[in-house]
Amino acid sequence: MITTLAIDVMGGDGGAAVVVKGASLALEKSVNHKLAFIFFGHQPKILEELQKFPNLAACSSVVHSDIIVTNDMKPAVAVRAGRKSNMGMAINAVAMGQADAVISAGNTGAYMALSKIILKTLPGIDRPAIPALMPTMKGKAVVLDVGANIECNTDNLIQFALMGEALACQILNLESPSVGLLNVGSEELKGNATIQEAYQFLRTLSDFRFSGFVEGDDITAGKTDVIVTDGFSGNVALKAIEGAARLIKSIITHSLSSSWLGRLGYLIGRSQFKKLQAQLDPRLYNGAVFLGLRHIAVKSHGGVDAIGFANSIDVAIQMVHKNLVHKIEQRLNLMNARIALESRRA
Amino acid sequence: MITTLAIDVMGGDGGAAVVVKGASLALEKSVNHKLAFIFFGHQPKILEELQKFPNLAACSSVVHSDIIVTNDMKPAVAVRAGRKSNMGMAINAVAMGQADAVISAGNTGAYMALSKIILKTLPGIDRPAIPALMPTMKGKAVVLDVGANIECNTDNLIQFALMGEALACQILNLESPSVGLLNVGSEELKGNATIQEAYQFLRTLSDFRFSGFVEGDDITAGKTDVIVTDGFSGNVALKAIEGAARLIKSIITHSLSSSWLGRLGYLIGRSQFKKLQAQLDPRLYNGAVFLGLRHIAVKSHGGVDAIGFANSIDVAIQMVHKNLVHKIEQRLNLMNARIALESRRA
Repeated sequence: MITTLAIDVMGGDGGAAVVVKGASLALEKSVNHKLAFIFFGHQPKILEELQKFPNLAACSSVVHSDIIVTNDMKPAVAVRAGRKSNMGMAINAVAMGQADAVISAGNTGAYMALSKIILKTLPGIDRPAIPALMPTMKGKAVVLDVGANIECNTDNLIQFALMGEALACQILNLESPSVGLLNVGSEELKGNATIQEAYQFLRTLSDFRFSGFVEGDDITAGKTDVIVTDGFSGNVALKAIEGAARLIKSIITHSLSSSWLGRLGYLIGRSQFKKLQAQLDPRLYNGAVFLGLRHIAVKSHGGVDAIGFANSIDVAIQMVHKNLVHKIEQRLNLMNARIALESRRA
Repeated sequence: MITTLAIDVMGGDGGAAVVVKGASLALEKSVNHKLAFIFFGHQPKILEELQKFPNLAACSSVVHSDIIVTNDMKPAVAVRAGRKSNMGMAINAVAMGQADAVISAGNTGAYMALSKIILKTLPGIDRPAIPALMPTMKGKAVVLDVGANIECNTDNLIQFALMGEALACQILNLESPSVGLLNVGSEELKGNATIQEAYQFLRTLSDFRFSGFVEGDDITAGKTDVIVTDGFSGNVALKAIEGAARLIKSIITHSLSSSWLGRLGYLIGRSQFKKLQAQLDPRLYNGAVFLGLRHIAVKSHGGVDAIGFANSIDVAIQMVHKNLVHKIEQRLNLMNARIALESRRA
């Protein structure tokens, strides 16, 4: 079985060079799965980059488009360009069954809007969300939304909770993941009306492990397996944690290199430091899925390098092979049926 | 000159024991300033704790109240109790000139509401904000609001920007601090209408170093000296960074102790690690001021220990001796006059 990946080449700050190199890295890394690539964008540029990677070129095709979705384009403009744009064509390849997943590092708003229109949402889901997998004291946690929906209503938050739980079941191998709602305090009376209402709904849900409100530091503490929030706060939290990791890495390096004892300590413990750095590497957590779509669309950071982009491709491959969309749909159907039943009884 | 501090003893998860011990630590630490304390709360409990610290007891008085503002009390209820509650009495002591500053680890919403009513806001300021001083790659940055105002309108954000800039001038010793508005991307079209409008206003302001939108990781990167946001996102960012620091500390400890080479490296570089830990200690950044009031009110974390509470007291003392409220008022008056002039010209 060949896994075919539709790649938007023009998104991302690094352009075609980074994206094509990333695809080549993903191909090298993928020993268990046969891969094929369809690149969408400016054909001459793509072919120029593909020349550098003969192995990749051998399993790739290129689809040219003159209409490029740029980073400063308003989502509405991108939606009007639709399936004629490079991004829309890449997404459409998945809808048409020509590819198993689409990956883009481009304009988030446009990618989200086009994916929603072309790939459609799962039953009971109004808007897809971007989840992130965060390292915690206890392992890993799913945080969502980290940037797809700047403003959310109560229904969105409830749907994110259900989707996040379904995702955590699969990728964290948990039978009943705990779910927390991000707030500025754990007391019941904190927060605005939207999260208050979501709280009141989720706490009455049976067979759902809702742990109430959690705070910003509970994310990395691993207080719950899933943390639900709107795309603004989630994005701020994710990037704040990444920024903190970078700051601390720089303090460690500076602190240890500022004395000969520190340097000696660093040299002796070096292999441990390398492991530590790898654990904190934000690129390993790059590759955000639009959760809630009927197909697989993965968003890579705009400012990512080739290793980060390769990781996004790997996320898409894992999703394809774990049949994740179907499994999440099954769990959502189960939860939705239960909610419908309970609301009829009430 | 004696600096007199009004202390709400009943707030905070640790109760009177932590607060009184914190005051004693602050007294020991304060060699340059003569201090006096007025404790507000349940008198027998306070006296019991004061017995343990004779030096502190010698410069303290106690004011009893039966009406205690608790953590689960709605702000409206606390406001009704007003100056009869322990918290209201402590705040009122500052308004009446009996104390130079008030410190509480209690219910944030109630403390904020009571402070606003009793101490009044500075001219042109609708709602006070809580700023935090964050470590960055380049030094320190002021982030506000980190929890006083869950929902903010455009005017609030603009006022926070002006107050934050005025504060940064003073505590970071800068002539013209740069100011950024927290968003999910640095592109002009990102974010909701509220921050879009604030952006459009701030970019036209003359003699004000507005750097546009910044993202979550720009906080610790030190991209700007001041980061402006609503109290929800600010609180999430602050706590997410604290949580990340704790996670990384735990990974370092675990990582280095898991091999004999790592342990040896740690032993040799130990003094550097201690320095590093001190730099990352969130307690050192504890002690949030309600910026925008006509007097000094400091909020300590609810879950703080005695060292953290002592630091909050120290923040209040520094504010008194730097005459910070007056200096911020001067700068705000200057900016407000300029804005009025520019809007008349426009």
